[in-house]
Amino acid sequence: MSTLRDIGEDPLIDRLVALVPRPSAAEARPGDDCAAIDTGDDTLQLLKTDAIVSGVHFLPDAPARAVGWKAAARVTSDMAAMGGAPKYFLVTIAVSPETPVLWLEELYRGISDCLTTHQAVLVGGETCRIPSGSAAVISIAATGTVLRQHLTLRSGGKPGDILLVTGSLGGSITGKHLSFTPRIKESDWLVSNYKPSAMMDLSDGLAKDLPRLVLASRCGFALDTAALPCTPGCTIEQALNDGEDYELLLAVAPETVEEMRKAWAAVFPELPLTVIGQLTELGEGQSLSGGWDHFA
Amino acid sequence: MSTLRDIGEDPLIDRLVALVPRPSAAEARPGDDCAAIDTGDDTLQLLKTDAIVSGVHFLPDAPARAVGWKAAARVTSDMAAMGGAPKYFLVTIAVSPETPVLWLEELYRGISDCLTTHQAVLVGGETCRIPSGSAAVISIAATGTVLRQHLTLRSGGKPGDILLVTGSLGGSITGKHLSFTPRIKESDWLVSNYKPSAMMDLSDGLAKDLPRLVLASRCGFALDTAALPCTPGCTIEQALNDGEDYELLLAVAPETVEEMRKAWAAVFPELPLTVIGQLTELGEGQSLSGGWDHFA
Repeated sequence: MSTLRDIGEDPLIDRLVALVPRPSAAEARPGDDCAAIDTGDDTLQLLKTDAIVSGVHFLPDAPARAVGWKAAARVTSDMAAMGGAPKYFLVTIAVSPETPVLWLEELYRGISDCLTTHQAVLVGGETCRIPSGSAAVISIAATGTVLRQHLTLRSGGKPGDILLVTGSLGGSITGKHLSFTPRIKESDWLVSNYKPSAMMDLSDGLAKDLPRLVLASRCGFALDTAALPCTPGCTIEQALNDGEDYELLLAVAPETVEEMRKAWAAVFPELPLTVIGQLTELGEGQSLSGGWDHFA
Repeated sequence: MSTLRDIGEDPLIDRLVALVPRPSAAEARPGDDCAAIDTGDDTLQLLKTDAIVSGVHFLPDAPARAVGWKAAARVTSDMAAMGGAPKYFLVTIAVSPETPVLWLEELYRGISDCLTTHQAVLVGGETCRIPSGSAAVISIAATGTVLRQHLTLRSGGKPGDILLVTGSLGGSITGKHLSFTPRIKESDWLVSNYKPSAMMDLSDGLAKDLPRLVLASRCGFALDTAALPCTPGCTIEQALNDGEDYELLLAVAPETVEEMRKAWAAVFPELPLTVIGQLTELGEGQSLSGGWDHFA
């Protein structure tokens, strides 16, 4: 019998969502960093849920406050990827009865740090029991908003668009994965001034995530691996495959890139914005595999 | 060091939410079956998240389709408790890599059954890995809507109001907990015709949930335990403590009750609506303990 280990994460999701009633294409766009609910207003509602698991996304002895930050910041990063920002959070914690209350309080302090930073609030949630010895699961759902004219999907890229990434890639496991900064203000600046044709956040590694953006945009791509902004001490392989970078990957019309990068450098002097390649016609360009698969 | 086992669920939640930024009272009302987001429109948005755990809320060999139904129906029941209905669902499944794909497909079919029944749709979610041997966690978040004039909270009860419950209580573990019907149409009928002063759904047992409604309404209560609509074969103790009834508990102005019950019997001839007691002045009436505590 086929198990989750035998099937990739993306094919699995495709099989599962095919079984369930879905919104119309006009009402919500599936398969992006968040669902964007379009009720015809100037503002769309973003919906996102994300979970982290002890022993998978964080070590059991990681500081609980950092774990809480990470759980909330991952959802925040997904909202940034759409050009929006989070607003209302719901937190579900599944933990064993012997979990220290102090650990849970520290976890909530970390969630609080992230919500406070992003002017978001907690509106509900629950703490439920798992059997002793089971891995703790922290599942966070949030609603957010994005202005209609700022909404940026994975699917809007066009052949010829330039591919860029914020920050540096690789080596997140040494600490950044617990303390990263969701690129909310950078995303807001981008969609307000030089709206990308496509955008996503890098959570599973460029090698996994770039093909997703390319597939959604029905393009090919040419990647200049030598140009990748590797985190100091990291190889190109690590920059491609480590995952958990939580940087933005964006596609921008070629005529805009030079001016945009100049303006970026003035506003965000400490955060690189690096050209890493270009979208091509579908069927042209390269292929890429690797990155993080949740069941591999 | 104090652990979750040493502290009740409600005191724990109180301690945790005190650490996190919260919405203003006008924007969202905390501590109810759902959060109700008030943006000044005629319709409020309901937000809810709920998780079920293998070995706690369902047995590992329970039919996956029933487990999926249960996971989605619990959230639906919480929307009914506010006088509203669900609309957009997000599903997070945390399972080990050796989980059969078939099991997950059946689970999604069960979720689909519930969404289809309630004209709701899936807009997102994720499937994430937990270590082998850990308990599976199914976490479901949903948004819903409720008309402003239909919104019914736990906190609106007044001394003298009559307490009623729908259906029968107790013995859910023999099967109903996997196949219950969320009281969406009953709730809609109630709030449209005889709006209760307070309402909630019974998930942790009347002995646990009634004191929650009473506390939120700042009343006391007198419960006629002999009048409890026990499920056939169940004792009063079971009706009080078993939990997972997913029936509605409501408080209604005394002058309304007789007419309401007559009209109810004509519309829902197969579902009892039973008077079980009355709200009293704060500090008067009885006390009650028992029911399901998530960490006991």
